[in-house]
Amino acid sequence: MTSLANTLRDRRQKLASLIDFPVILWSGSDTPRNFPANIYPFRASSHFLYFAGLPLPHAAIRLEAGKLELFIDDPTPGSALWHGEMPKREEIAAQIGADSARTMSELKHRGSNAASIPVQNYRTTLVQSQVLQRTISSPYDLDGIDKELAKAIISLRLTHDTGALAELRKAADVTVAAHKAGMKATANAKIEAEVRAAMESVFIAHNMTTSYNSIVTVHGEVLHNEQYHHPLQPGDLLLADVGGETATGWAADVTRTWPVAGKFSPTQRDIYDVVLAAHDACIAKISPGVEYRDLHLLAATVIAEGLVDLGILQGNPQDLVEIDAHALFFPHGIGHLLGLDVHDMEDLGDLAGYEEGRNRSDRFGLGYLRLNRPLKSGMLVTIEPGFYQVPAIFNNAENRAKYQDVINWERLAQFADVRGIRIEDDVLVTDTGSEVLTIALPNDADTIESLVN
Amino acid sequence: MTSLANTLRDRRQKLASLIDFPVILWSGSDTPRNFPANIYPFRASSHFLYFAGLPLPHAAIRLEAGKLELFIDDPTPGSALWHGEMPKREEIAAQIGADSARTMSELKHRGSNAASIPVQNYRTTLVQSQVLQRTISSPYDLDGIDKELAKAIISLRLTHDTGALAELRKAADVTVAAHKAGMKATANAKIEAEVRAAMESVFIAHNMTTSYNSIVTVHGEVLHNEQYHHPLQPGDLLLADVGGETATGWAADVTRTWPVAGKFSPTQRDIYDVVLAAHDACIAKISPGVEYRDLHLLAATVIAEGLVDLGILQGNPQDLVEIDAHALFFPHGIGHLLGLDVHDMEDLGDLAGYEEGRNRSDRFGLGYLRLNRPLKSGMLVTIEPGFYQVPAIFNNAENRAKYQDVINWERLAQFADVRGIRIEDDVLVTDTGSEVLTIALPNDADTIESLVN
Ligand SMILES: [Mn+2]
Ligand SMILES: [Mn+2]
Repeated sequence: MTSLANTLRDRRQKLASLIDFPVILWSGSDTPRNFPANIYPFRASSHFLYFAGLPLPHAAIRLEAGKLELFIDDPTPGSALWHGEMPKREEIAAQIGADSARTMSELKHRGSNAASIPVQNYRTTLVQSQVLQRTISSPYDLDGIDKELAKAIISLRLTHDTGALAELRKAADVTVAAHKAGMKATANAKIEAEVRAAMESVFIAHNMTTSYNSIVTVHGEVLHNEQYHHPLQPGDLLLADVGGETATGWAADVTRTWPVAGKFSPTQRDIYDVVLAAHDACIAKISPGVEYRDLHLLAATVIAEGLVDLGILQGNPQDLVEIDAHALFFPHGIGHLLGLDVHDMEDLGDLAGYEEGRNRSDRFGLGYLRLNRPLKSGMLVTIEPGFYQVPAIFNNAENRAKYQDVINWERLAQFADVRGIRIEDDVLVTDTGSEVLTIALPNDADTIESLVN
Repeated sequence: MTSLANTLRDRRQKLASLIDFPVILWSGSDTPRNFPANIYPFRASSHFLYFAGLPLPHAAIRLEAGKLELFIDDPTPGSALWHGEMPKREEIAAQIGADSARTMSELKHRGSNAASIPVQNYRTTLVQSQVLQRTISSPYDLDGIDKELAKAIISLRLTHDTGALAELRKAADVTVAAHKAGMKATANAKIEAEVRAAMESVFIAHNMTTSYNSIVTVHGEVLHNEQYHHPLQPGDLLLADVGGETATGWAADVTRTWPVAGKFSPTQRDIYDVVLAAHDACIAKISPGVEYRDLHLLAATVIAEGLVDLGILQGNPQDLVEIDAHALFFPHGIGHLLGLDVHDMEDLGDLAGYEEGRNRSDRFGLGYLRLNRPLKSGMLVTIEPGFYQVPAIFNNAENRAKYQDVINWERLAQFADVRGIRIEDDVLVTDTGSEVLTIALPNDADTIESLVN
């Protein structure tokens, strides 16, 4: 039995111990880009990948009592002309340890009483509804056995087994190499896009993709910046949030911020060290049982402390966090689950990220937190504190009024060359504490400078 | 008025001279990859791009009597936090020379009697149907005013204006650079993926994408090979079919085949020169009025001649083409239209590629021809003859019987180190003949060798 087949058998046996109804999971189908033959690179549904192991397009699996049935059509004779000899159904079945293998049309009569989760591909959800003989539309508001299934899958996917970790380590390693390539390419790059090219080419060379659309920008204050045309100026900081995804779908998610000219200004280094202190404090505290929300508040407090020390904020750091003053500079959450999705299982809304009975806070400084659970050994999370000067936040009249007594705007003006800094690593919760999967990528200011030069 | 606005005004005035009903074209919307916030890079519908000029997501335009109305929502206040300050509706309207600009919801009451073409994005086709108050599903079988619209758009997009040509030249130039980078990277590459990385990184660095999924393979006999894991062996030929697409959607499509070790074997060079002779013969013949189908048959004849000279085929080349013997080695068409789509307007099936009244041949040697029209000045076409040893063709019992007297299998066996060769350039039909937009990329065997070394 292949090691993949072993991994998959363990996963479905665990699933069978949690639910007592059959499950059908679809991989999804090709998505046309501008015409049917010109498709986006296929990405199989993550729930399918978790139990089927391979990114098979137009396929489905049926799980019942620990048994795996594969449904996929053999390549047509004509397809050999265009696509070469592809693996046959039986070969795929052997590779993943399926108990049986059938054509897709045989799935039609196997849908009654089965649970499923709608895929992202709209066309496939129509097929899902047909086979299940009921409407299945959005993974955001599941009910009945579909919701039971989602909860069971979440309880499995929340912590990673050996097979998953091998892939996650691969994703992390290649992502580390991509960031090093980006730092090295900066000296000769004229625009952001050239650094992005150096980084993403590392994934392509390893037969991987990006796990999300890269952020490579001198405008780190735009949190989801997907523009890459800005010129690199000597005084700029470059923020690169770039992660790879292995061929079977497992993700990394890493951010580094480095000085374009290879040397942080004194003000840039001051803020950088505040963000790094928050990052290190969180990682030092990671251990089973720790509340992830407390890591967020810890990061907020360390950032508030640092900004008080620098004279940017005034007051007691704890009090500042309680009134969300940290969120003026650190408006997002400290991180999220990482696995087959870069925000793992976010297709299910907050069902995975939030412990049952918990809901998003409406506090400015907590509402963007994507994960609110006690940590468990085997969970993989990101730790990604940041500091940003976002005009939309600073110019907001309500904010200016509410925080007028705690911000020293004149002092802040001296840090104008710090538009955005984020430091993000991928951290595995272990029995005794944590292991940083991206440890090979330095994050202290001195070493960063040496890698850029 | 911007030069883009001028270009767009000319296009819609030409459209207004052909049809007398209003037109609404949608750009399409984001496509989720594995969860809603993790999307594929947005690609606007090509018909929208042709008349709107910019890749605006979630937008529509209404064209009537030469007037342009833009429908797009302003960014929400919250979006500035995540996406920064984005251009407002009125700024976009000014840039593209729209006569007016409205919100998307205002489109709801403007759909009656309007023609449209369904986009590839399934969710958007639902909106299209709502606004038009009728079902609009597949661009393959349009009727009524939708079909009239499609024919009018085809008559415009078949030949390229100055604005289009500026973009198409940019796509060609960067694609040339990508191929040179690929050749240069081969010496140090261990697998196909590393060459692909060197090529695609050139597009990323220029803020461009690939216009289709790249083929970079030592198994050129697999025509649509999208695997990149094979090791590069010294005796291999590497076939790279890789093209770029500009930010506003205009495509290039180029193939080169080079020896991994920088030197063609004598057998590889013999076949390479046959393919190149076919390529050059076609381009030499391109001129307004020439039937594209005749170029295909010319390439088939030159290839048949070459293979007769090499002792692989036996008989009279014209006769060999009539029995489709060329298609044993050259099973695809000589090329296709190129523009906003790499197979331009293939979303409309053969409506663009085939002159009215013409249909696909059921001949093995002609059925894959994507373009069957007389050439016109301003058309951009690919010329891409090839030679492949496809097991699925050679091992087909019917083929072996039918062609047993014309193939010298023993002689062919001596060319076992030629699995697949294709040479593809992008050729503009001019008033007096043609201009090869990708002329800066050498294609003769000697220069190719020097670029690899
Ligand atoms: Mn992250
Ligand atoms: Mn082509």
